[in-house]
Amino acid sequence: MRDVYVVGVGSTKYGKMRESVREGAALAALEAIENSKIDPRLIDGAFIANAFAVTERQGHVGPLVMSALGIPEKPASTIEAACASGASAFREAVVNVAGGFADAYMAIGVEKVSTLDTITATGYFAMGSDFVYEGACGASFPGLYAMLARAHMQRYGTTEEQLAAVAVKNHANAKHNEKAHFQKEITAEMHKESMVVSSPLRLYDACPFSDGAAAAIVATKEVAQRLGGPMIKVAGMGRAGSVASLPDRVATDLTTLPGAKLAMKQALDRWGKPASKIDFAEVHDCFTIAEIIASEDLGFFAPGTGAKAVEAGETKIGGRIPINPSGGLKAKGHPVGATGVGQIYEIYNQLAGKVNPARQVRGAKVGLAHNVGATGGSVAVTILEVEN
Amino acid sequence: MRDVYVVGVGSTKYGKMRESVREGAALAALEAIENSKIDPRLIDGAFIANAFAVTERQGHVGPLVMSALGIPEKPASTIEAACASGASAFREAVVNVAGGFADAYMAIGVEKVSTLDTITATGYFAMGSDFVYEGACGASFPGLYAMLARAHMQRYGTTEEQLAAVAVKNHANAKHNEKAHFQKEITAEMHKESMVVSSPLRLYDACPFSDGAAAAIVATKEVAQRLGGPMIKVAGMGRAGSVASLPDRVATDLTTLPGAKLAMKQALDRWGKPASKIDFAEVHDCFTIAEIIASEDLGFFAPGTGAKAVEAGETKIGGRIPINPSGGLKAKGHPVGATGVGQIYEIYNQLAGKVNPARQVRGAKVGLAHNVGATGGSVAVTILEVEN
Repeated sequence: MRDVYVVGVGSTKYGKMRESVREGAALAALEAIENSKIDPRLIDGAFIANAFAVTERQGHVGPLVMSALGIPEKPASTIEAACASGASAFREAVVNVAGGFADAYMAIGVEKVSTLDTITATGYFAMGSDFVYEGACGASFPGLYAMLARAHMQRYGTTEEQLAAVAVKNHANAKHNEKAHFQKEITAEMHKESMVVSSPLRLYDACPFSDGAAAAIVATKEVAQRLGGPMIKVAGMGRAGSVASLPDRVATDLTTLPGAKLAMKQALDRWGKPASKIDFAEVHDCFTIAEIIASEDLGFFAPGTGAKAVEAGETKIGGRIPINPSGGLKAKGHPVGATGVGQIYEIYNQLAGKVNPARQVRGAKVGLAHNVGATGGSVAVTILEVEN
Repeated sequence: MRDVYVVGVGSTKYGKMRESVREGAALAALEAIENSKIDPRLIDGAFIANAFAVTERQGHVGPLVMSALGIPEKPASTIEAACASGASAFREAVVNVAGGFADAYMAIGVEKVSTLDTITATGYFAMGSDFVYEGACGASFPGLYAMLARAHMQRYGTTEEQLAAVAVKNHANAKHNEKAHFQKEITAEMHKESMVVSSPLRLYDACPFSDGAAAAIVATKEVAQRLGGPMIKVAGMGRAGSVASLPDRVATDLTTLPGAKLAMKQALDRWGKPASKIDFAEVHDCFTIAEIIASEDLGFFAPGTGAKAVEAGETKIGGRIPINPSGGLKAKGHPVGATGVGQIYEIYNQLAGKVNPARQVRGAKVGLAHNVGATGGSVAVTILEVEN
């Protein structure tokens, strides 16, 4: 198995995207091509992470994007794993290079949902649930994550104020992220006064529906060295699942996503170092409770202590383990297919020392991405490390 | 890169499927698990080829299928490349095993469209085209393939009678295929009298809308040997694209799919032998003209001679190079996501000597699958070979 490096990344601004799915994807890909300095003809193929192009009556997005990039002969398939589509596409790009099937490959995530009203968008997102047993019964994602929040509150005494601390931190980080959907701070007061979406979750516990696209190019060591950019290695990857339907997990434990623990174990096993050696993480905070659960599943904090840790500032930039310096899904935004690739974009730029100094994690050598589909049906963990 | 073997296959009957997408997928997967004799816990993950689960409001099909199979902890992403989804999913399963990321992986293709009326289904299928420049302008797939047929007729004098010969042959083969959508013969007369769908293509030039699911399990040589089944190796694979939009290819050549030639070259390069050494092929005959073009793109016949070859019986079982002994998309059926995996199902069973003797390609040691998305935007070629 060959070592694989991220050689370039690109991203549109998240929020409302005027461009179509294919155009957004191509813009992010072009940025990645430009900043990697790679000849696009050396890219052997791509995976497009996308869930909702159907809303513009478009499937088979891959060839459209490759044609737009001027390399129509190169293959591109769409990969979908609900909100973990991006990391899943990134993984397969890495697998192709590591396995010797390609010397350079691209993962592009893209989504456009701003053409939909909130009800319609929520309905589309609910397709990521076990629709027969969840979505169709009214359990869309705010409701499902509210169940996880209730379970965490009951078992560990987690409070609404602690949930608010996640949102406040992530908005503060996104304020300094020019690609973020929301570049504004919020206060605990604003969180408390925001409407209840699904008790105990309020509007400010939820990530927004965002448009956006992100791209990452991975390549062999030889290609990476030739391109001359920073040597940022894919040091570990894990990809696992959990029982698809939340009702089927009630009898076990709703304060954890089993697939996240498993994916983290796989990633650490490959990396060969413990979670404590990770400098910062981008985690899947589709709702504030999700970040708290993630911080425990990933082993940064013991079960039941993640909420207290965020309240104590341990996950702020400058804290013990900065979480979501980008602003996370909560404030950077959540363009479904793009999200997992956008985490790689953030980690690459952090490790390359290229982000706004106001939110740069200083001295970071290792970053982790945690991307979740639905309530853990799909989970991917990726560790990137600067090679000196 | 490790050698990879197909260790088991499964398929539902194509046609109208009572089961939902997840159920159909699980049934095909269970059949593959049973006939491979593998412990499902040794399967490291799966790719689900699917395009239209959205019609049952379901995305994120992977975890549902893995949960149904009792291995919810194993990851599963959906792969979509229009009608080439199946072979694309199969390819990535092989890449994971060859690259050392897994010892056994599964590709499952599934589709259910019988709940849709013909107009609605045609509209969904048109999402595989460049919708803005093709589908939305009324150029759905019958129209696009009619353009290819017209070009072939103009340049090479291909006739409607030669198109009919493809349909008659494939229906004759499917008559003996218990998994086929249509197990009945048709005559050239019936073809001639069938309604024009998009001139020059008639109803009997077109494959049906089918439901169905197919599965294939791939594994390392060590696992394959331990399981004790026939040793059927993935000897070559190619995956390429063509300019996405047919209007953008008019100035070049509409009698060929560039991606098919390229994917074939890649597959032969990996295999190290010429096309003449292939014993039979399953090709993507979504329309009769597509089989003729495929037989030329794959190098079985010189450009412009494929139509004469089918008329002369050279592609019948017992002919020089049997094409679509399963009945092909035309008569076996075309459940979009399942099709490419179903081709692997057929080739495996042919090479294992397990098909109905009336359509067994005798002495076959090498079979080829050719799976196309849209008008060649995605093409995958796979070569399987019996290892003695």
